[in-house]
Amino acid sequence: MDRIYVTYAFVGENPAAIADVIRVEQTIEFPYELAPSWIQEEVVGKIEEISSQDKTNHLITISYNPDVAGGELNQLLNVLWGNVSLFPGVKMVDLKLPAQLLQRFVGPRFGIGGLRKLFNAPTRPLVATALKPMGSDAKTLAEVARTLALAGFDLIKDDHSLANQPWATWKDRVTLISQAVNEANATTGGSSVYAPSLNLPFDQISDAAHTAKELGAGALLVIPGITGFDSLRKIASDNSIALPVLGHPAMLGSLVISKDEGISHGIALGTFMRLAGADISIFPNIGGRFSFTSAQCLEIADRSRANLGKLNPIMVAPAGGMTLERIPEMIEMYGKDAALLIGGALSRGHLADNAARMCEMVRAY
Amino acid sequence: MDRIYVTYAFVGENPAAIADVIRVEQTIEFPYELAPSWIQEEVVGKIEEISSQDKTNHLITISYNPDVAGGELNQLLNVLWGNVSLFPGVKMVDLKLPAQLLQRFVGPRFGIGGLRKLFNAPTRPLVATALKPMGSDAKTLAEVARTLALAGFDLIKDDHSLANQPWATWKDRVTLISQAVNEANATTGGSSVYAPSLNLPFDQISDAAHTAKELGAGALLVIPGITGFDSLRKIASDNSIALPVLGHPAMLGSLVISKDEGISHGIALGTFMRLAGADISIFPNIGGRFSFTSAQCLEIADRSRANLGKLNPIMVAPAGGMTLERIPEMIEMYGKDAALLIGGALSRGHLADNAARMCEMVRAY
Repeated sequence: MDRIYVTYAFVGENPAAIADVIRVEQTIEFPYELAPSWIQEEVVGKIEEISSQDKTNHLITISYNPDVAGGELNQLLNVLWGNVSLFPGVKMVDLKLPAQLLQRFVGPRFGIGGLRKLFNAPTRPLVATALKPMGSDAKTLAEVARTLALAGFDLIKDDHSLANQPWATWKDRVTLISQAVNEANATTGGSSVYAPSLNLPFDQISDAAHTAKELGAGALLVIPGITGFDSLRKIASDNSIALPVLGHPAMLGSLVISKDEGISHGIALGTFMRLAGADISIFPNIGGRFSFTSAQCLEIADRSRANLGKLNPIMVAPAGGMTLERIPEMIEMYGKDAALLIGGALSRGHLADNAARMCEMVRAY
Repeated sequence: MDRIYVTYAFVGENPAAIADVIRVEQTIEFPYELAPSWIQEEVVGKIEEISSQDKTNHLITISYNPDVAGGELNQLLNVLWGNVSLFPGVKMVDLKLPAQLLQRFVGPRFGIGGLRKLFNAPTRPLVATALKPMGSDAKTLAEVARTLALAGFDLIKDDHSLANQPWATWKDRVTLISQAVNEANATTGGSSVYAPSLNLPFDQISDAAHTAKELGAGALLVIPGITGFDSLRKIASDNSIALPVLGHPAMLGSLVISKDEGISHGIALGTFMRLAGADISIFPNIGGRFSFTSAQCLEIADRSRANLGKLNPIMVAPAGGMTLERIPEMIEMYGKDAALLIGGALSRGHLADNAARMCEMVRAY
């Protein structure tokens, strides 16, 4: 395989006509018959297969010359989904990328193996949480982080909604929390890391990543649905940063939530996250505050782990309203290559006790 | 009004319950009853109104303290749509922003008035086109651009699919096309501008905007659905660039295409584009290759022009398979504050003749 293969599900009539439109729309956007014959042959996508389940449900596979993506993630996204996102009834459900193109991506720096070394956790799931609630001042959040680090959490991330609010500005927050977590590590000999959010203005993201590292943060949180998948790629691939990166699904819901349009959960939250270089993909688990199905969650896990050139497989972080009681079921569902993320529920009752209990439960595996 | 007011349409039962979930999800993401009372009062969103059309169709208006957005576009998007994007049956259909927050945004540098001065076009629509097809070398694209500039086009933009492909790399393309357009201007005394695409890697976008200006480009094209709305804000607000910016809708289809989820066409392609600073919002017109309805297109036009603090109103660029025959109808529909964008159709027959005819038709208004 030396081409990009995309399968689009199409709900509607005449799949051959829409296939013909898509292969042109995603490449030359120009009347096909007016293009030079070599462009028709080499640049325009090719219809590889059309199969119909019934009169209105079809699968269309189109292949693209990898040169149309020019080796860049932003243009790859554009070829796969740019203007076709504007078509009703079309959903991207499968994607195969050729080795030649995958070689252009560094991918996840740590991946499952690197995270296991970093956290000295050869086989168990990771223990993760989020600092909340917005409105708390930086000192309060830092004390919460200290408690969680003393309990032995691996990953303590900013709530994705924490940005630059007046109650705790980014710099104050990252300074105090990094310090608290590192002090806790000095006490316990542990290796908890704090992951501040980089949902900041476009022109501050890269500098903030460096600043976070200098201040002692041990990982970073990126929201590619807002700042772009390529912001994640830049942060993950920068050798002068070299920290694990967590990808958060905010705003990416619009890529996956419609039944008949958008992109499959696995491609958007597994493949795209991993191509961009996330070491951990966070997504809403079944049975919490959201509505993903088991099949959708497991597709994310599959795409996070399946072969993808030489790119590292990544950890999944099923989250969104999880509780301690669900830990065994989550491990049953996702296996041990997961970062179990419980946030608000730790504050029901005594935080330090709940945190200790969660660490014990997960480390028992 | 000193709060952010968002109206979400909800398809489902029990709108009061989902309203209560949203106001917490978009702010503290934490069990409401466990939050300090001042955070419940000041930080969590407030349910302002719930109205039900029938058992399953409801409108929910929630207001947010503008401090939750911290004056930053990325966090504003996160508050409005971050995690709620992951909820089925919820669509953002109205948005009102307080003056205090709008003051933090520079918005469109040129807007309708500035573009009219720049193009010496006090009342008529602007004449715009896109350089195609991908696969053409930079010299060929430059000669097409020269022909269009000699014919008197105001705006000659890169096809949004042009990135850094081997057939015409970004630097070569921008160099040769800028030169051709400026030579044509020297011949005609006209003021055609070339708008190269900035759909480039995250860490190259800002430099590329400066390079494009140095090379003689007169405007810039940004794809916020891929590089993020805040990349557009940065490019538009940078005083050392100070060029008009066109916003392209690629990948934003997933925000608007689902009937029951996502964001209304007007908010996504009108308000958000304008908040970020686009001077022109490009979108697929009715009756072309896409499926937007008249009402959806007109909502974009309305939001592009309606009062939004002190932010300039912007031009709309209805596009996507338009032909010369449709110019009168497009002007009838959108009025004169539009950039009429015809691409591939100009190549049916003789390009120079078609280009001249289009300029004549539009200038007749």
